[in-house]
Amino acid sequence: MGNGDVVFQANGEFGHRVTVPPPQPFFKSLKTSFKETFFPDDPLRQFKNKSASKKLVLGLQHFLPILEWAPRYTFSFFKADLVAGITIASLAIPQGISYAKLANLPPILGLYSSFVPPLVYAMMGSSRDLAVGTVAVASLLIASMLGKEVSATENPTLYLHLAFTATFFAGVFQAALGLLRLGFIVDFLSHATIVGFMAGAATVVSLQQLKGILGLEHFTTSTDVVSVMRSIFTQIHQWKWESIVLGCCFLFFLLLTRFFSKRRPKLFWIAAAAPLTSVVLGSLLVYVTHAERHGVQVVGHLKKGLNPPSVTHLTFGSPYLTTAIKTGIITGIIALAEGIAVGRSFAMFKNYHIDGNKEMIAFGMMNIAGSCTSCYLTTGPFSRSAVNFNAGCKTAVSNIVMAMAVMFTLLFLTPLFHYTPLVVLSSIIIAAMLGLIDYEAAIHLWQVDKVDFCVCMGAYLGVVFGSVEIGLVIAVAISLLRVLLFVARPRTCVLGNIPDSMIYRSVEQYPVAHHIAGILILQIEAPIYFANANYLRERISRWINEEEDQLKSSGEASLQYLILDMSAVGSIDTSGISMLEEVMKILERRAIKLVLANPRSDVMKKLDRSKFIELLGQEWIFLTVGKAVEACNFMLHSCKPGSAMAETDARDNIV
Amino acid sequence: MGNGDVVFQANGEFGHRVTVPPPQPFFKSLKTSFKETFFPDDPLRQFKNKSASKKLVLGLQHFLPILEWAPRYTFSFFKADLVAGITIASLAIPQGISYAKLANLPPILGLYSSFVPPLVYAMMGSSRDLAVGTVAVASLLIASMLGKEVSATENPTLYLHLAFTATFFAGVFQAALGLLRLGFIVDFLSHATIVGFMAGAATVVSLQQLKGILGLEHFTTSTDVVSVMRSIFTQIHQWKWESIVLGCCFLFFLLLTRFFSKRRPKLFWIAAAAPLTSVVLGSLLVYVTHAERHGVQVVGHLKKGLNPPSVTHLTFGSPYLTTAIKTGIITGIIALAEGIAVGRSFAMFKNYHIDGNKEMIAFGMMNIAGSCTSCYLTTGPFSRSAVNFNAGCKTAVSNIVMAMAVMFTLLFLTPLFHYTPLVVLSSIIIAAMLGLIDYEAAIHLWQVDKVDFCVCMGAYLGVVFGSVEIGLVIAVAISLLRVLLFVARPRTCVLGNIPDSMIYRSVEQYPVAHHIAGILILQIEAPIYFANANYLRERISRWINEEEDQLKSSGEASLQYLILDMSAVGSIDTSGISMLEEVMKILERRAIKLVLANPRSDVMKKLDRSKFIELLGQEWIFLTVGKAVEACNFMLHSCKPGSAMAETDARDNIV
Repeated sequence: MGNGDVVFQANGEFGHRVTVPPPQPFFKSLKTSFKETFFPDDPLRQFKNKSASKKLVLGLQHFLPILEWAPRYTFSFFKADLVAGITIASLAIPQGISYAKLANLPPILGLYSSFVPPLVYAMMGSSRDLAVGTVAVASLLIASMLGKEVSATENPTLYLHLAFTATFFAGVFQAALGLLRLGFIVDFLSHATIVGFMAGAATVVSLQQLKGILGLEHFTTSTDVVSVMRSIFTQIHQWKWESIVLGCCFLFFLLLTRFFSKRRPKLFWIAAAAPLTSVVLGSLLVYVTHAERHGVQVVGHLKKGLNPPSVTHLTFGSPYLTTAIKTGIITGIIALAEGIAVGRSFAMFKNYHIDGNKEMIAFGMMNIAGSCTSCYLTTGPFSRSAVNFNAGCKTAVSNIVMAMAVMFTLLFLTPLFHYTPLVVLSSIIIAAMLGLIDYEAAIHLWQVDKVDFCVCMGAYLGVVFGSVEIGLVIAVAISLLRVLLFVARPRTCVLGNIPDSMIYRSVEQYPVAHHIAGILILQIEAPIYFANANYLRERISRWINEEEDQLKSSGEASLQYLILDMSAVGSIDTSGISMLEEVMKILERRAIKLVLANPRSDVMKKLDRSKFIELLGQEWIFLTVGKAVEACNFMLHSCKPGSAMAETDARDNIV
Repeated sequence: MGNGDVVFQANGEFGHRVTVPPPQPFFKSLKTSFKETFFPDDPLRQFKNKSASKKLVLGLQHFLPILEWAPRYTFSFFKADLVAGITIASLAIPQGISYAKLANLPPILGLYSSFVPPLVYAMMGSSRDLAVGTVAVASLLIASMLGKEVSATENPTLYLHLAFTATFFAGVFQAALGLLRLGFIVDFLSHATIVGFMAGAATVVSLQQLKGILGLEHFTTSTDVVSVMRSIFTQIHQWKWESIVLGCCFLFFLLLTRFFSKRRPKLFWIAAAAPLTSVVLGSLLVYVTHAERHGVQVVGHLKKGLNPPSVTHLTFGSPYLTTAIKTGIITGIIALAEGIAVGRSFAMFKNYHIDGNKEMIAFGMMNIAGSCTSCYLTTGPFSRSAVNFNAGCKTAVSNIVMAMAVMFTLLFLTPLFHYTPLVVLSSIIIAAMLGLIDYEAAIHLWQVDKVDFCVCMGAYLGVVFGSVEIGLVIAVAISLLRVLLFVARPRTCVLGNIPDSMIYRSVEQYPVAHHIAGILILQIEAPIYFANANYLRERISRWINEEEDQLKSSGEASLQYLILDMSAVGSIDTSGISMLEEVMKILERRAIKLVLANPRSDVMKKLDRSKFIELLGQEWIFLTVGKAVEACNFMLHSCKPGSAMAETDARDNIV
């Protein structure tokens, strides 16, 4: 009787066998993995077993969530939404004008962008707390990316048209991501990336505002800190003290109100109303003192009336089309990341669910509609949504109220902004930006995870010293490198027996765990792929060498069995299987037998198809490490160590 | 007494605790992971506890392995190496001329390249079986990449100088990879990629040879199959029958000899000598019949003499420098991949070890030296090394013998090649290339792993229908996408109890495993990273929904505990920890308690630092799923399900 048969019988005693799963039809397994990749949330579940008309209603409700909640809308909801809507409108008007200036676009576009997109979102969005509007980072990105190709001062019309075109492509890209269920691309912008990126963008945006605060007329078009500092300190004689005094006063006022609101959340409206108050106070001051004649720049004339159509301004034939598409895609993904993160955070607070892919379609449609009605890129900014949430909004009706307030402003109140000093707008942006620098989160990252901290600092320094795009590329590259490195250099650890149990755990993590004489147990903690197959072969050889050195120096018996615990090996590819075959050959030459413990069904399937199981012997695969050790110990004590190998060889030669 | 305390006591009974590993100094852990990443083979191990002079000798031997084996070299080794060296020289001469033609370089360069590089490799290389020489794929790549910028026929001098410069940069890049211990970059070219890529390159190279076989004078510079076919079939009237007949005869002869050698490995020398025989026969035939006047193209004049120096021809100031660098890097990495794979395969046969990083330095130095002595890119071609191995070579001395034979040819025999017909060289290339199309490996990939098959076919079709670079990019992209997708969409599975044991395994893999009432056990099979945190949250929610739906329909008690088996979670980042916190909140709202089983030391460390363990309660972390289930069952039966949560809530409110 061969050696294998002894084990085989023993294996029967030692518990359940690890069987090869029955073969699945190729297309069925393809369908399953396709579904898990693109439809992990199973969106068709609610349509099951419903009548055709019900299915139609559900389908409409899926794309227009307003149809779902509008029938249940009550007057008490409306009261809450009215207050919230007016509050965010008072924030939206000055912020809109400021951010449009930041994007080098006419200030009126900021107001237009707070009218149409919120209405579209109110119908299609699934968040109840998101307040729609333009954001500083995307505005800055538009200015820097389009500004590289076309100057906003020399060729304002072309620049404006490119901005609409970029917004259109951002919308198309966002909607396409949602429709193609590729929402998970946004997940690749990790929390650490966003913290660093936002802080960097806030720093850069604040630095840009020094132009307004110092009252400078010429300023660098670069965004990096070195260019900005050089631009500022080469123009010291151009600094205007009136502007600086005004700017510092308003900044102090805005920061003070925020400080109070933070300490007493019930006073949130003080911070929310402060920007509009600053604008009113600043405008009055300029109007009374005629400071615009003493170097304080003002907004100037704003056209009355609602959004003019801009479909004809989309320039698909322009030589700058690729620039517009690139700008659209990058700003679109940044806007998505911010909007979806904000929507998710508030949904978690109130315990309702947000569908990422549906939100992407809503954002996309909102920007496509916006690009046709003189709006530029909008999303769900954190500051405005937080005010909305604190003001007690109940549904997306608060967005409709805000849109109505902005409409009223556009129709009747635009002349009032003529004397609004730019320095006040700069103060408003700086105050908003300082809130985005989340240094506590960065400290937390340092304490918990050094790699995440590197990602965060990479994004921050890249944005501040390079450009917004460079920062983003660095952060995404470090994040991906980390994932690849995890797979390329998986951990392996030696397992030992926890006393008085059948449990085997890492001897490093549990110092009580002890070795078993003659048996080395290794655990591999990652899928075995081409990227790590060579490394694992080298590492396993090194473990064996180290173990044998140690055994030799302590005069113990040499190694007889290597048990590979495959519990944590989620997958294997053909390079991985070749690696196992090579390891088996190396071991055979050293008269060590390879044993596998707990391979998963996926791994078993591939090992079977590649005939590795035949090569190894099905009887050498065990359900747990404990059973494997039991069987090896049984073999060690029932046959003489040397003869075991010889016997196997003899049998192999006969068969 | 609070609820947690009961568990805490129980946990004491239920076995060992999962403790937080003691904090490690930051730089120590950085050093450890740095070492694992770049020095997994621990190259400094042999230097430990040695005297300074011994260390110097070991260091020299490390960089010049010849110092290690030369003192042990014997006469019987030399006899074997002499036979092997002469055999591979007879293959090297015609192959060298053919491949140089393929690279659009003067044929004599092929001979030069078989003289200096083998000598360098013999001193620095650690493989005993590798035979150095030029390869078809790299030659074709040089022709196609440099040919895009500079025409080899219109500006041969510039083209030649660029080829030397590209070789120089390939060498620098290879040596740098080795010195920086970045050898693992080559691992990202998986086995499947190489199978597809080689087959594609072989197809493309064979198609290019139709120029020689058909005796055409004008031919497309593109390598894709469509351009080549168009080029051939638009020139049907230019086909020369003499050339076609000659080509087919020699191809048949070469394939026949290979067929015999394959069937009887002892007759390997028939296949090895066949190319030189063909060259001799073909040249004689042309010389006798004066076929060169009837449309059979010949090699023509070859300069006598050894390699002229070419240091001064390295053009670092040329406007085409970036092209040369790009060509160098791409061909360098391809050459490395082939050379190292070949070296490793034969080392495994003979059971000795090859150090990948050391090999890279050897390849790099060989190409740097080559670029200064009129050679172009060389590596360890599979065909030549296989012949070397079969001829019984013992050490790298066979390379020295080959170099001497080539030197002799360069000094005295070059006039003999004047009448060698190009069609014979084409036949030699085609015969060599057909051996590279490993369709059996592709079938194996299809059977074992469909994704690997896609990678392989992507590489093949990309090379054949696009270009060599496109094929490579497609294959690497699919391979990386697979790794990222594995992390972005990790598998999760429900565990059940294997009857009569404390073992918990996937219910899908082991249908005998059964559920435990009131407890859902989930296993996550990948590290929890930013790329999958959102997915995992959704997926866990879905598992709970499905479980509760099922419990409701069968009228069982609702879910009380969710046990997450963290055995296969190798790592976690801050996004992952946030995800766990969110899951805990979601579960709390549904009155389900989260329990963790067997988190690894790395994960424990991070969960501790982020205060997640405090939030969850250390007593809810168990060593095994079995212990966790025991504790949960204990709680389920000792307290009423409803009151348990109420009690916890009450306690939380008091504290």
